[in-house]
Amino acid sequence: MITSRTQVTDMIQSAKILKGIKWSQIAEVVGQSKEWSTAACLGQMAMTKQQAEAVGELLELTDEAIAWLQIVPYKGSLPTEVPTDPLIYRWYELVNVYGTTLKELIHEEFGDGIMSAIDFSMDLQRENDPKGDRVSVVMSGKFLPYKMY
Amino acid sequence: MITSRTQVTDMIQSAKILKGIKWSQIAEVVGQSKEWSTAACLGQMAMTKQQAEAVGELLELTDEAIAWLQIVPYKGSLPTEVPTDPLIYRWYELVNVYGTTLKELIHEEFGDGIMSAIDFSMDLQRENDPKGDRVSVVMSGKFLPYKMY
Amino acid sequence: MITSRTQVTDMIQSAKILKGIKWSQIAEVVGQSKEWSTAACLGQMAMTKQQAEAVGELLELTDEAIAWLQIVPYKGSLPTEVPTDPLIYRWYELVNVYGTTLKELIHEEFGDGIMSAIDFSMDLQRENDPKGDRVSVVMSGKFLPYKMY
Amino acid sequence: MITSRTQVTDMIQSAKILKGIKWSQIAEVVGQSKEWSTAACLGQMAMTKQQAEAVGELLELTDEAIAWLQIVPYKGSLPTEVPTDPLIYRWYELVNVYGTTLKELIHEEFGDGIMSAIDFSMDLQRENDPKGDRVSVVMSGKFLPYKMY
Amino acid sequence: MITSRTQVTDMIQSAKILKGIKWSQIAEVVGQSKEWSTAACLGQMAMTKQQAEAVGELLELTDEAIAWLQIVPYKGSLPTEVPTDPLIYRWYELVNVYGTTLKELIHEEFGDGIMSAIDFSMDLQRENDPKGDRVSVVMSGKFLPYKMY
Amino acid sequence: MITSRTQVTDMIQSAKILKGIKWSQIAEVVGQSKEWSTAACLGQMAMTKQQAEAVGELLELTDEAIAWLQIVPYKGSLPTEVPTDPLIYRWYELVNVYGTTLKELIHEEFGDGIMSAIDFSMDLQRENDPKGDRVSVVMSGKFLPYKMY
Amino acid sequence: MITSRTQVTDMIQSAKILKGIKWSQIAEVVGQSKEWSTAACLGQMAMTKQQAEAVGELLELTDEAIAWLQIVPYKGSLPTEVPTDPLIYRWYELVNVYGTTLKELIHEEFGDGIMSAIDFSMDLQRENDPKGDRVSVVMSGKFLPYKMY
Amino acid sequence: MITSRTQVTDMIQSAKILKGIKWSQIAEVVGQSKEWSTAACLGQMAMTKQQAEAVGELLELTDEAIAWLQIVPYKGSLPTEVPTDPLIYRWYELVNVYGTTLKELIHEEFGDGIMSAIDFSMDLQRENDPKGDRVSVVMSGKFLPYKMY
Amino acid sequence: MITSRTQVTDMIQSAKILKGIKWSQIAEVVGQSKEWSTAACLGQMAMTKQQAEAVGELLELTDEAIAWLQIVPYKGSLPTEVPTDPLIYRWYELVNVYGTTLKELIHEEFGDGIMSAIDFSMDLQRENDPKGDRVSVVMSGKFLPYKMY
Amino acid sequence: MITSRTQVTDMIQSAKILKGIKWSQIAEVVGQSKEWSTAACLGQMAMTKQQAEAVGELLELTDEAIAWLQIVPYKGSLPTEVPTDPLIYRWYELVNVYGTTLKELIHEEFGDGIMSAIDFSMDLQRENDPKGDRVSVVMSGKFLPYKMY
Repeated sequence: MITSRTQVTDMIQSAKILKGIKWSQIAEVVGQSKEWSTAACLGQMAMTKQQAEAVGELLELTDEAIAWLQIVPYKGSLPTEVPTDPLIYRWYELVNVYGTTLKELIHEEFGDGIMSAIDFSMDLQRENDPKGDRVSVVMSGKFLPYKMY
Repeated sequence: MITSRTQVTDMIQSAKILKGIKWSQIAEVVGQSKEWSTAACLGQMAMTKQQAEAVGELLELTDEAIAWLQIVPYKGSLPTEVPTDPLIYRWYELVNVYGTTLKELIHEEFGDGIMSAIDFSMDLQRENDPKGDRVSVVMSGKFLPYKMY
Repeated sequence: MITSRTQVTDMIQSAKILKGIKWSQIAEVVGQSKEWSTAACLGQMAMTKQQAEAVGELLELTDEAIAWLQIVPYKGSLPTEVPTDPLIYRWYELVNVYGTTLKELIHEEFGDGIMSAIDFSMDLQRENDPKGDRVSVVMSGKFLPYKMY
Repeated sequence: MITSRTQVTDMIQSAKILKGIKWSQIAEVVGQSKEWSTAACLGQMAMTKQQAEAVGELLELTDEAIAWLQIVPYKGSLPTEVPTDPLIYRWYELVNVYGTTLKELIHEEFGDGIMSAIDFSMDLQRENDPKGDRVSVVMSGKFLPYKMY
Repeated sequence: MITSRTQVTDMIQSAKILKGIKWSQIAEVVGQSKEWSTAACLGQMAMTKQQAEAVGELLELTDEAIAWLQIVPYKGSLPTEVPTDPLIYRWYELVNVYGTTLKELIHEEFGDGIMSAIDFSMDLQRENDPKGDRVSVVMSGKFLPYKMY
Repeated sequence: MITSRTQVTDMIQSAKILKGIKWSQIAEVVGQSKEWSTAACLGQMAMTKQQAEAVGELLELTDEAIAWLQIVPYKGSLPTEVPTDPLIYRWYELVNVYGTTLKELIHEEFGDGIMSAIDFSMDLQRENDPKGDRVSVVMSGKFLPYKMY
Repeated sequence: MITSRTQVTDMIQSAKILKGIKWSQIAEVVGQSKEWSTAACLGQMAMTKQQAEAVGELLELTDEAIAWLQIVPYKGSLPTEVPTDPLIYRWYELVNVYGTTLKELIHEEFGDGIMSAIDFSMDLQRENDPKGDRVSVVMSGKFLPYKMY
Repeated sequence: MITSRTQVTDMIQSAKILKGIKWSQIAEVVGQSKEWSTAACLGQMAMTKQQAEAVGELLELTDEAIAWLQIVPYKGSLPTEVPTDPLIYRWYELVNVYGTTLKELIHEEFGDGIMSAIDFSMDLQRENDPKGDRVSVVMSGKFLPYKMY
Repeated sequence: MITSRTQVTDMIQSAKILKGIKWSQIAEVVGQSKEWSTAACLGQMAMTKQQAEAVGELLELTDEAIAWLQIVPYKGSLPTEVPTDPLIYRWYELVNVYGTTLKELIHEEFGDGIMSAIDFSMDLQRENDPKGDRVSVVMSGKFLPYKMY
Repeated sequence: MITSRTQVTDMIQSAKILKGIKWSQIAEVVGQSKEWSTAACLGQMAMTKQQAEAVGELLELTDEAIAWLQIVPYKGSLPTEVPTDPLIYRWYELVNVYGTTLKELIHEEFGDGIMSAIDFSMDLQRENDPKGDRVSVVMSGKFLPYKMY
């Protein structure tokens, strides 16, 4: 019996490693970007029936697991408030160092409000550079203004 | 007597509000992007003598404050591990929800290593959109591979 | 010299107590609901020039304080992650006890997404009841769906 | 052997997903609102014998699980002090941003005391809106005054 | 300018020590029990105008301080989640060791609900005992049942 | 193999629920108050051989479990520093709100020292009241003075 | 105006350093052991009038400070839960490493109960040793047994 | 398969309880003090082959467990930063209350440095006393001075 | 089914202990330094196919485990923010005591930037010394300067 | 009046910045390495009378500040458990990632014990490298073995 979405994430990771499948291949059968598809597999998004079945077929998941993939998960993918993994920590560091800068510049441009993390998309690309290739990430979120009432 | 860089940040915020100056105006006298210049004013980067004096003149800071602007600050701009401010929290949420996704995709593309938060630049723009304007942020960091030894 | 918005909140609280002014009176000069106006005075919303000047006149604030009222504040009104004040704790308890219930029911009705805390309004009323009057709070937030990309 | 109420919640979630049953259907057999019934299934309320048996029949639970549903549970439905799930976090954010506002307005209207989280009810509805449907939540709690003694 | 209730508590403690006044004497002029009166002085209860003026006269407080005594304070009297002071820690230890026992026994006697901490009174007495005097504390709180809705 | 006292507490809870036995019945076979007996079953006190065997017989525990009941347990019955369960939280709130009051009044009456949480007893009773029954708890602990040396 | 015992500790430390006085000299005028006297000066014990005046004379404290020395302080001398100072950390490490050992051995010898930290004394001595001198600390606390009731 | 030293500690506790063996008996076969032997069994020290085999024989442990007893363990015996068990907490309280006192007196006697928690021994004894027996603990650690370089 | 890299670390530790193999022997078959090889086995580095197979053969791991060794792990090897193990704590203490010193000296020599923890190597050696052998650790990390943009 | 060593550190930082003095110049007048001298100025080591006076003269400190420099400080130079400054965080990351590796390798070479953080020295150098200069840090600490007793 599956009793949490985390178990399904574990099954996916395990099958992906044993079969040597890549996230980009999973994204192809899902029919969405590699960013969204990976997040969905890792328990951060809910799939449609069709998407879940496609992933289930590719990774040979059980019907129960496929049913769980269609449920909205309890989100949050990190085990600690401050991430210990160096790659993920760098992103936390960016928030920590540049957080107030982002706040000031968004308010200067848009006024009081936030950049949505829901109506949001992300695109991660390799940027070739003779001094060493770079990771380029474009994040785009709708600006949502606070309203008076 | 100034005894911490935080006091200088307070002075800058105070002067900026009273004089009604914008971050983009400060960036102009600093001669760098608005992202870097704002971060520098908020105590996250060290300025050159020339940059510090330009900011000092614009905001009428004391010589002591100008000297402090040239010192490498103790970085980290947030008062709590999990930020309480909604705009900044959304960025923390992105790390929390997409952290493992970023990790998987960067490793799939580049192998083991990290995206640098030091050899890094950031560009924040308004993206016009009929369904509501968007905040677009491009982040670019050098990929640094772990080495065997 | 005022160096943080918290100082302005302190000034407002102090003047309000000494003058015996009510939040509903402040809301009247602000021209918005009592909920929004109180939040704005307590450092959670930014006022327009007109609103700030009206509050400043009523409470005899300095020009510097009035300038600060128009700046978007660093939000978050509580000194600890788990609030110690019994009235505020009860709200935290509601989130703690009913959090997963709210999540299940909103997803059942709307699918994956969130209820906005930005495009949001709140109305607090006394509900007369022979068994003891009740506090009635209506909260209304736009539903924001996660999008595939 | 069942050794904690959490196991029963897991069983309910698992059966509900496999059978494709909705919370509103469960509420119907429980004979209470969808808010109370969901909270009870998620381990936050104790059911009567009749309610527990109705849920047990619908979801094919064991007798042991049905016995546990009638026990007052150890409440609190969230795994961390600050919730990581974006939907639930927005509620925590409301407490964080509006906490002192709620405190001020309830005290202005009622004097010293609290809004009960026990003698409390909640009603969650979809509010149709051309600019995007809204989630509307009405919360009603008895006001309990502090007494001198 | 007084900007927080804590400053008034400090003034009261300071004046009480310099004048050598006892809590029981303060309770007398307040006209309530020593438990309630002490809690009120320490920033946990709001006084009436008459009570505040009586305390103000006894301890020679300023008019501003007397005004603050009539405001509902932000409650919570301890500087850390787990108290470090041995006397107060023992009470935390009782909650930690006997917490689940209190829960089981109250539910066995009353069903699901809580013992109110608002409609509550407390009486602390010396209990003479040849083996060493004892501190006896009687706590009485209304039982509040959870209601179905 | 039983490897921690927590497992025995789980067995007791499980058997008690399945058999429909009350804490007062357990207290009877233990031969002590319901408060002490419940605490002992929940892993906070060590039983004598006779007491453990009586509980073991009533709840049909294994010999290994009965052996564990006679061992002094690692005490502390709560999973988090600040309890999330509303009934238990109210007790934490009392310590938080009244902690400094208890400290002041005990010191005023007894001088420097503490109220023992070891040489301690507790009695919980229903107090009939036309305005709603009350939970009454009498706590009695020996006063232990600090000594100079 | 002195508003907390911490200020008096600061005054004592400051005067002691400027005058070059030793704790053993202070203990002499207090008339108690160096361990108790130091703890009292550092805000962990309450002095008698005579003791406070003796310390006050030696260190030239104000009358207000001398009054505060006779008040039972809010105890706990460390700024963080886990001490950062290496000397004090070693003591925390001893509790962390040997905590369960102390528990097992005290229970084996005495049964269920604790070693008092109130009816307690401590003696710190230099132990000459050719391989390097040692710090020897003798701690003696009354055993307090848990009682059934 | 044993995958952590904690499992071996569990096995030892379980066997010790079922066989009714005392720590002093274990110390005898180990051939070291009861303090060291207990700490070693509880996963805080590494045993020699001979010691591990002696304990293994007495408690009928498997060869795998005996192999693990000879490995240096990851030390730290407590589940939380601040211990919840009252006996162990009292030791944490001593560090909290007397920590700065220990620091001051060791520095006054020895200069800058620490008392070693590694080159350290401990002896716990019952001290008979007509007013109630006492727990006496002698701790002896080498003083290690900071060196200039 | 293996569902996390931690399980593989457990298998390695278990096999290493039962077979009596040393880290230096593992490093030999891996063909890298003992520092890198140990970190890789403990789940902090990703191995090549060849390295993973060599370790798998030496320790008789399953094919599934060998597949997991080639995956980039979620890094961070400690169970708590502040390590409880005395050997590891001493390293945390060095960061705590010397952290600001390292910062000042690196900035004085190199300007604003960091010492890389990725382009990094470490060499641990025994240093013979008549006063007691020493642990000598050489750490070498590339300096990465912050850049203006 | 100086009431804490932190104030002296602030004075030193302030004077050093205004006068444009380097840590290496301070080390020269102190007569110890730049590592030790910087740590001493930053409140982590105690100076001799002669060293304190030399620093005092160079930075024009008051006699009171010079007296404080000779007192053993309360050590620990970081404001949070996990450092937010990127340079210092990298060192914390090294402990987090390599902590268990350091533990395994030191135990393999030396047996049970620790590397001293007290009988310890550190040397930081620039290492020229065509691919980018490196920071090289040699740390040397005496090995201290656990002893049986």
